[in-house]
Amino acid sequence: MNSSQLFEQIRLKKSYLCIGLDSEFEKLPAFLHRNDQPQFDFNQAIVLATHKYAVAYKMNTAFYEARGAAGWNDMADTVKFIRSINHNIFIIADAKRGDIGNSTEMYARTFLDNLDFDAVTVSPYMGSDSALPFLQRQGKWVIMLTVTSNKGADDFQFQKIKGSGEYLFETVIKTSVLWGTKDNIMYVAGATRPEMIRRIRKLIPDHFLLMPGIGTQGGSLDEVSRYGLNSKCGILVNASRSVIFADHSENFAATACLKASELQKEMEVILKKSL
Amino acid sequence: MNSSQLFEQIRLKKSYLCIGLDSEFEKLPAFLHRNDQPQFDFNQAIVLATHKYAVAYKMNTAFYEARGAAGWNDMADTVKFIRSINHNIFIIADAKRGDIGNSTEMYARTFLDNLDFDAVTVSPYMGSDSALPFLQRQGKWVIMLTVTSNKGADDFQFQKIKGSGEYLFETVIKTSVLWGTKDNIMYVAGATRPEMIRRIRKLIPDHFLLMPGIGTQGGSLDEVSRYGLNSKCGILVNASRSVIFADHSENFAATACLKASELQKEMEVILKKSL
Repeated sequence: MNSSQLFEQIRLKKSYLCIGLDSEFEKLPAFLHRNDQPQFDFNQAIVLATHKYAVAYKMNTAFYEARGAAGWNDMADTVKFIRSINHNIFIIADAKRGDIGNSTEMYARTFLDNLDFDAVTVSPYMGSDSALPFLQRQGKWVIMLTVTSNKGADDFQFQKIKGSGEYLFETVIKTSVLWGTKDNIMYVAGATRPEMIRRIRKLIPDHFLLMPGIGTQGGSLDEVSRYGLNSKCGILVNASRSVIFADHSENFAATACLKASELQKEMEVILKKSL
Repeated sequence: MNSSQLFEQIRLKKSYLCIGLDSEFEKLPAFLHRNDQPQFDFNQAIVLATHKYAVAYKMNTAFYEARGAAGWNDMADTVKFIRSINHNIFIIADAKRGDIGNSTEMYARTFLDNLDFDAVTVSPYMGSDSALPFLQRQGKWVIMLTVTSNKGADDFQFQKIKGSGEYLFETVIKTSVLWGTKDNIMYVAGATRPEMIRRIRKLIPDHFLLMPGIGTQGGSLDEVSRYGLNSKCGILVNASRSVIFADHSENFAATACLKASELQKEMEVILKKSL
């Protein structure tokens, strides 16, 4: 999928919503706990209830690896299920990998070739080797961490670099943007730091941004949209816990549907004003 | 395991060798390819042949995840097998994880509680949240990336920070050293950058350093030992491909034994001179 095709889906669904399937086993409705594939069964119900409103799904690998091989299979089956519902949904492995070249090549085979994700989140610390093997896959994406939504973001991302005086995350953007194109690299811009989104947009007006941190983490959809939107939308806003865990009863899927549709409606209004 | 217990093992075995079980399926001897657990069978033979000479084993998760759930099980079984051979071997998950707090908590459960690794490698970009959940486990370790052995290390790790004038990796050390103690945090210092090891030692004279990059990547054991050793050894030097893939025939374990024993002998000579 390239950026035009992603924009086409956004126009079609009037939504730039990404739903985070952070389907932590302990938080699943209790009646699912004894199923053979509890995380897959949960995800299947969530996807069926929300895919009209979402252009993307994001799975944080941490929540699947915690169940070992069983969790890994649930993650793999979720990707297959989403593909079977709609081939044009953008599926992100939120794996935050970053390694030397031969190990990154392994991760690229794992997430892009074998599991058929569209994109993998990448941590920049180890430099170009951490991204290039992913970028060699036609139609696949790297999503590079720049400004993250957590407290620890303050430790290093806002260190100022000698000479340029820019923040470390700005150096990360200026360096890594040369490794790919706006059709295979996007950037994480935490929704809890709206003031930084303006700085990011100055450096990369045309690239897609993935924005985690609305909902439970406290970011505002209006604010991040105001700073992040470009003429081709250019943002995916992620909500995880506030959609999938809004209700722990047997009505969880219906409630997730409602939460996702509310976000979609807000996005439709915002898109109408700005495009 | 704390740092004194690790040093005790080093004295006992006269070795500070860590063997990297980067057991990529495609590189395994062909006759193992059809086994039910090819990576586990390979690792088992390597561990049996080398554990006298090594105080630590390191598994890069990339090579196991590439086989999905089957690879995950081979990784888990390898940890159990090493434990059954010798309880005092230090086992590292070279996972290079780094995420927000609730996801890191999941990774800590996965690698430290469930799989029973002693340590996990952590990428610093997202700050303290990426380390703290690991450090809350008694007797378990974080191994923080600072200077890595790959080409991409140049992209960000040696950016100079405004004000202090120090390198980014030095800021990473000075900040993260406050999150733990010398008994639960060690640092990656790539063996391909010996000149940087001196700078690292100035900041953290007493902490253990994990040094990847000798062998295939070109680092020199003598040189990294000269700069890295402290009065309690204080280093683990990792060799992966140069030991485990030195021979692709049915003699692979015997050859790995020979390669590991050669490294151990060199280390014994170095330790005798320096301790």
